[in-house]
Amino acid sequence: MSSKSGFCDLGFAKVDIDRKQRRGFAEAIYCAGKTREHIKNIACQLIKNRQDVLLTRLDKQTFDYLKKQIPGLKYNLLAKIGFLTKRPSLAKKGLVLVISAGTADLPVAEEAAVTLEVMGNRVKRLYDVGVAGVHRIMHHAGLLKKAKVIIVAAGMEGALASLVSGLVSVPVVAVPTSCGYGASFAGLSALLTMLNSCSPGIATVNIDNGFGAGYFASLVNK
Amino acid sequence: MSSKSGFCDLGFAKVDIDRKQRRGFAEAIYCAGKTREHIKNIACQLIKNRQDVLLTRLDKQTFDYLKKQIPGLKYNLLAKIGFLTKRPSLAKKGLVLVISAGTADLPVAEEAAVTLEVMGNRVKRLYDVGVAGVHRIMHHAGLLKKAKVIIVAAGMEGALASLVSGLVSVPVVAVPTSCGYGASFAGLSALLTMLNSCSPGIATVNIDNGFGAGYFASLVNK
Amino acid sequence: MSSKSGFCDLGFAKVDIDRKQRRGFAEAIYCAGKTREHIKNIACQLIKNRQDVLLTRLDKQTFDYLKKQIPGLKYNLLAKIGFLTKRPSLAKKGLVLVISAGTADLPVAEEAAVTLEVMGNRVKRLYDVGVAGVHRIMHHAGLLKKAKVIIVAAGMEGALASLVSGLVSVPVVAVPTSCGYGASFAGLSALLTMLNSCSPGIATVNIDNGFGAGYFASLVNK
Amino acid sequence: MSSKSGFCDLGFAKVDIDRKQRRGFAEAIYCAGKTREHIKNIACQLIKNRQDVLLTRLDKQTFDYLKKQIPGLKYNLLAKIGFLTKRPSLAKKGLVLVISAGTADLPVAEEAAVTLEVMGNRVKRLYDVGVAGVHRIMHHAGLLKKAKVIIVAAGMEGALASLVSGLVSVPVVAVPTSCGYGASFAGLSALLTMLNSCSPGIATVNIDNGFGAGYFASLVNK
Amino acid sequence: MSSKSGFCDLGFAKVDIDRKQRRGFAEAIYCAGKTREHIKNIACQLIKNRQDVLLTRLDKQTFDYLKKQIPGLKYNLLAKIGFLTKRPSLAKKGLVLVISAGTADLPVAEEAAVTLEVMGNRVKRLYDVGVAGVHRIMHHAGLLKKAKVIIVAAGMEGALASLVSGLVSVPVVAVPTSCGYGASFAGLSALLTMLNSCSPGIATVNIDNGFGAGYFASLVNK
Amino acid sequence: MSSKSGFCDLGFAKVDIDRKQRRGFAEAIYCAGKTREHIKNIACQLIKNRQDVLLTRLDKQTFDYLKKQIPGLKYNLLAKIGFLTKRPSLAKKGLVLVISAGTADLPVAEEAAVTLEVMGNRVKRLYDVGVAGVHRIMHHAGLLKKAKVIIVAAGMEGALASLVSGLVSVPVVAVPTSCGYGASFAGLSALLTMLNSCSPGIATVNIDNGFGAGYFASLVNK
Amino acid sequence: MSSKSGFCDLGFAKVDIDRKQRRGFAEAIYCAGKTREHIKNIACQLIKNRQDVLLTRLDKQTFDYLKKQIPGLKYNLLAKIGFLTKRPSLAKKGLVLVISAGTADLPVAEEAAVTLEVMGNRVKRLYDVGVAGVHRIMHHAGLLKKAKVIIVAAGMEGALASLVSGLVSVPVVAVPTSCGYGASFAGLSALLTMLNSCSPGIATVNIDNGFGAGYFASLVNK
Amino acid sequence: MSSKSGFCDLGFAKVDIDRKQRRGFAEAIYCAGKTREHIKNIACQLIKNRQDVLLTRLDKQTFDYLKKQIPGLKYNLLAKIGFLTKRPSLAKKGLVLVISAGTADLPVAEEAAVTLEVMGNRVKRLYDVGVAGVHRIMHHAGLLKKAKVIIVAAGMEGALASLVSGLVSVPVVAVPTSCGYGASFAGLSALLTMLNSCSPGIATVNIDNGFGAGYFASLVNK
Repeated sequence: MSSKSGFCDLGFAKVDIDRKQRRGFAEAIYCAGKTREHIKNIACQLIKNRQDVLLTRLDKQTFDYLKKQIPGLKYNLLAKIGFLTKRPSLAKKGLVLVISAGTADLPVAEEAAVTLEVMGNRVKRLYDVGVAGVHRIMHHAGLLKKAKVIIVAAGMEGALASLVSGLVSVPVVAVPTSCGYGASFAGLSALLTMLNSCSPGIATVNIDNGFGAGYFASLVNK
Repeated sequence: MSSKSGFCDLGFAKVDIDRKQRRGFAEAIYCAGKTREHIKNIACQLIKNRQDVLLTRLDKQTFDYLKKQIPGLKYNLLAKIGFLTKRPSLAKKGLVLVISAGTADLPVAEEAAVTLEVMGNRVKRLYDVGVAGVHRIMHHAGLLKKAKVIIVAAGMEGALASLVSGLVSVPVVAVPTSCGYGASFAGLSALLTMLNSCSPGIATVNIDNGFGAGYFASLVNK
Repeated sequence: MSSKSGFCDLGFAKVDIDRKQRRGFAEAIYCAGKTREHIKNIACQLIKNRQDVLLTRLDKQTFDYLKKQIPGLKYNLLAKIGFLTKRPSLAKKGLVLVISAGTADLPVAEEAAVTLEVMGNRVKRLYDVGVAGVHRIMHHAGLLKKAKVIIVAAGMEGALASLVSGLVSVPVVAVPTSCGYGASFAGLSALLTMLNSCSPGIATVNIDNGFGAGYFASLVNK
Repeated sequence: MSSKSGFCDLGFAKVDIDRKQRRGFAEAIYCAGKTREHIKNIACQLIKNRQDVLLTRLDKQTFDYLKKQIPGLKYNLLAKIGFLTKRPSLAKKGLVLVISAGTADLPVAEEAAVTLEVMGNRVKRLYDVGVAGVHRIMHHAGLLKKAKVIIVAAGMEGALASLVSGLVSVPVVAVPTSCGYGASFAGLSALLTMLNSCSPGIATVNIDNGFGAGYFASLVNK
Repeated sequence: MSSKSGFCDLGFAKVDIDRKQRRGFAEAIYCAGKTREHIKNIACQLIKNRQDVLLTRLDKQTFDYLKKQIPGLKYNLLAKIGFLTKRPSLAKKGLVLVISAGTADLPVAEEAAVTLEVMGNRVKRLYDVGVAGVHRIMHHAGLLKKAKVIIVAAGMEGALASLVSGLVSVPVVAVPTSCGYGASFAGLSALLTMLNSCSPGIATVNIDNGFGAGYFASLVNK
Repeated sequence: MSSKSGFCDLGFAKVDIDRKQRRGFAEAIYCAGKTREHIKNIACQLIKNRQDVLLTRLDKQTFDYLKKQIPGLKYNLLAKIGFLTKRPSLAKKGLVLVISAGTADLPVAEEAAVTLEVMGNRVKRLYDVGVAGVHRIMHHAGLLKKAKVIIVAAGMEGALASLVSGLVSVPVVAVPTSCGYGASFAGLSALLTMLNSCSPGIATVNIDNGFGAGYFASLVNK
Repeated sequence: MSSKSGFCDLGFAKVDIDRKQRRGFAEAIYCAGKTREHIKNIACQLIKNRQDVLLTRLDKQTFDYLKKQIPGLKYNLLAKIGFLTKRPSLAKKGLVLVISAGTADLPVAEEAAVTLEVMGNRVKRLYDVGVAGVHRIMHHAGLLKKAKVIIVAAGMEGALASLVSGLVSVPVVAVPTSCGYGASFAGLSALLTMLNSCSPGIATVNIDNGFGAGYFASLVNK
Repeated sequence: MSSKSGFCDLGFAKVDIDRKQRRGFAEAIYCAGKTREHIKNIACQLIKNRQDVLLTRLDKQTFDYLKKQIPGLKYNLLAKIGFLTKRPSLAKKGLVLVISAGTADLPVAEEAAVTLEVMGNRVKRLYDVGVAGVHRIMHHAGLLKKAKVIIVAAGMEGALASLVSGLVSVPVVAVPTSCGYGASFAGLSALLTMLNSCSPGIATVNIDNGFGAGYFASLVNK
């Protein structure tokens, strides 16, 4: 099918090559549940149509397969993101701050941070500053003031988003993580916490959706 | 036990050999949770009684075992369906359209499509046309009008069924898939979406139940 | 806004006057959560554009208010449906059978039956034939064979849909009702039963959604 | 600790050697989550105190270990039950009928049946008679009348318990199984069905609790 | 419709007049969700066919209406049960013991007790003996030994059923009540407790289903 | 307590008079669950400290009481918001678009829109453009392009947020509403839909939280 | 029944008059779901046996009825507690601090505080210091250090308990409240937050269970 | 970063070296979801700052790696706890009693007991005394009286906490375990039981959170 329609038809996929023009960034490929051949073909189609490539939930083995087919493809192991982009010269001036409550939240926080970087944002990381030792976040009050938008990744009870939001005047994007056990119900506890925050100025994305948090924050940071 | 009763008693199973006459199609065998010996014996009993054989949730290893015992048994790997039928000469004239929102929904969509084909329907597939790039489904508006019944397989938020239903005047059979993570709760999110559609003309089957969607659509297409 | 766009813009509502042409039946008005002035204005707009009027979840008081404004508006108290249609001369020849498991399911069953009648279908009702006394449904085996599509409304454990489906070769549209208490969780029990039926040939609509069941069955009965 | 207290104290366990006298049958050992050494020591303590031994959820490997230590220990692979009893001469005259809806429910049904046999009951099995082909259970109406108590094991929508109960005048013990997928939610669907039955005369045990169903039915059959 | 079919067809209801012969007791009428005219007509049909009448979930106002139409109809306010029976001369010799954990569980316990009495059982009540003061139930150990079957009604955490079961050798029918607040989730907590009892010999009915518990216990007590 | 601490201590409340300086807007008062005296005292304290007043979930009766005490207090009945602000001269140039899927979602959409206006944003409303008639939102594609941030309020299946997000390059703030019945579970269905959107660029607030959506969008629009 | 058994048998209740000796405080009466006659009789029985009286969930009307029968009975309207005690001379020296996150949490916080006072504890209240304005709780750091045990009542996201716990070295008893809406699910969100706290030193009681929190804290404060 | 701030910044972690002074015990390291390098670095940082080390959810392999780096590190296999402490000379005089309902609850009970010992408490264990054989706990009534605080670990229906609480006048810390299957929903059943206890004097921690129970009890035992 011709690309006049705004997509390329591979049968198993209709690659959206109108995405960058319409939405400002190319279609990202969510790799979970797709065969590696499917991923490769979609990625190649994007490259052929001069779109950036961003692959989320990409495991190491699949990346190793892909990099043989796609020269220049890069990979961030912690974030499980593969990418091939003409990195823009940081057209977006605002700073995005990515905060995590604990060390175990790092994969999700990094998925957000790498997504932001791939999309051309200035990013700073502030990790392991959860409410169990509140002096840690308080110590960085100055840094909080410098951000244009803040992402907070937290699991277990997810209380950090409310606390941060109460200290700043910029939007806080909350991403619950599935860290925890028992009544955390794989991230449900943190999700509900973030949705019910008594502090306005928070919006929430899906559990473990670091990509979505980064993408959304990048739109805010335009 | 004699077949006068409408079933053959194998002890561990009472094979329903009255099914085709009563319901128009033979008893399908749901293979999950059955031993391969059980599956083989039930299938052989069906063959002995001149019933078609349709095996769902059949993994490759079990198929490899079965095909040694049952000459002519065919297999579709993506749909995980085994079958042995006297394919009817497409007595059903209506076209059934099987739509998927994403590439990761293909196993479920294919389970529906293969079931439809085994049951003698004309089938067309339209894959990866989810709402994130709505121009893809709009591009195929003409094809939508030609179907007598439409199946929509979608995971994550499952919004595609509502959109399709709003464009057509035929029944839409919605099948939620377990694609997604976090608050998709293994397909619950898509299931609720489909049940709550603001667009009338949709009925829903169980999560990942491509077979059920195909079977139901085949009854509609009589 | 002109109707060229396919809708009339009332500010609080964009009435879809393209619906009948596009989908075969006019936009139905779901009255719950709307003010009576809103309902009246939408209904009048439909009439002005020569569309049929079908009002669901319409309580008696609101109907009494509306009928003063809209001459000829009819009302079915049990189904809570108001309507004003040029009843077609039963263009659809197939019979739709509406079955209820118990007497307490009647409001939902009637919502389905009246919707079907307003949409021009031949309808028969078979009420209170639940599985606690299975001889009742067995007594009507002949009637079951005559239907082109069957609706089953059931609350509590909702087992009737599976039983009926196992006896026929036509599609069964299952509508769970909120009848019951305790672990019925306001219809959840019956909903899950219907979604998990071991008998293929069933598709399900939302809890208490008699309108949706009737609308869907009417599409099947074309 | 002396057994005057009614138990033997092994530190990690207090073996209830008063159980047979107090409750009519010895303490059964639920093996899941216990080390094989723990299981062995508890079983030996029971034997030393002349109690019967009944081991549930016992996997084959653990049984192989145990039988070296405990001569005469028997095992039923499908039911995953180990036992060492002085089988009583069927003092309980009543017949207990164990029914399963499908072939995949057999492990649970067998856990119930073997428990009943170990506890000295006369047992008959009637398997794969689910509601998708209701003629199968109807064919055995005579057998249903002969039972003093009936167990029904069913997964998916679990409708069989209601149907059976409506045909008989004896208690029906319903045991939901985790057979199914998607919205069966690992047996929740069948559990809710059984709890909400419109047919009185049913009581329910935990999902997959064939042992509990058998134990309870044995008490009824005294 | 003639009664040869085993039921009387009132259109809105098919009264099961074969129930007593088939199941040992007439069809009970669950009044919630039925109009009082419907209730009256069903009850009169039962009387005409010489069946006993048992009306559950019957509120006082509806009873006041009914007693004008049905001479001799009796009512138990706490249990919300109406009945008109030829009380049998206690053919069932066994004693049924109805236990409640707290005073607030009385309506459910009484629904069970009255159902048992109407069905001809000898009943004793033992109320407010919950685990918070375990000496109360221990004080009645002798009474526990005399019962042939025991019903335990409990809300909140519902722990009493396990405790009682551990003391006796007869079946315990557990009925969770909706007493409680917060994380009792309207009886869910007590329901789960009873289903997961570590003490075998318990089977459970629906939340607040005193009628079902009584009916089941009556079958056990035959 | 002196205001040096950044709050005024009323005993039952510690009014945060540092909020405007710290976060850019005064503390909003969530009125549900507070007595009218409490609300009045908090509001007066804010006024005394020259903070704006924004009262959410304020019913008409309480407003009538308050306006006697607080001259100049304004009220929006549909949004249930009371306010007393020195309206800024629209310092924020960006346009915020508030979209609703249906007419029944208006109270939530209006809560968002009025919050935005009180906080000094330019707002446009686009109501009743749900996916059941997708031509309605497509007709306004031009308007979508003009917004700097978009709010989408939708109940039932909540699919509109995904569709809108797929058409634009700005952040979409999704607010699920409790419109619907049955398996909408009071807004849960729409909430899950929005969290699981296949279209990136969406963040979600609590069910019916129009205030939170408006507040967040206002921060984005700085 | 004589009180030798440790209880008085009123038929509908077995009043535990051994409670004070066994547990240190008399049986409290949970009034919800009990008739006022039942409450009166239980209270009088306690008085007769020289036990303190503590009535929870006592509405004003029932109190007005009771105070006519029981001279000296006192009432706290906000806490909905009635009581008649010989107030001990504050034998417990430790200070218990009762903290609430918001003003709407006061009824639960007061139920805890009054329970503590009736049980002879020194109590201080610190209300409306939620995380949205963290300077409020920080301002009272000195007070936090003086408590021997702390109760934190919070609804919505319930984050305050974690924050407080992280600042102190004494046990924190967390009581979630049902304040909130939407995805707070009537207190579930706050409950999960408190159970999943990343800060050790917290234990949780049921939603809205101010009495339980107070009672537990009083035991800790011995 | 200097330790003046009260923490050491390792980038991926901000180690809270102010914890012992502020809270009485050093920061415990929750090992699940952390790499072994991360764990090692955090532990070494604590040692460098003269804090005790307590590692929870530490599997054997990771311990084997760590003990090569950290001389003197000890390990309890059943409790999955690693620790390196200057054991205090039992400054806390009170006895803490750790009770388990069954043998399968031992890992959780031991996590509590070892935590208590590491924190300097006198501990006694009383295992396998669940309600199925209530004479076992009754036999130890004397021991119950000697404790200053009691921990009860129980899975399945979790009824033991209520029973124990009813016998004593000290605080009971309840820890639900995930032992069980089916409707235990991985510990949810026991959790709800403990939260809804009819016996006051219980507070609850997260499912399987033996560490949290031990830590909390240690604070009570000061």
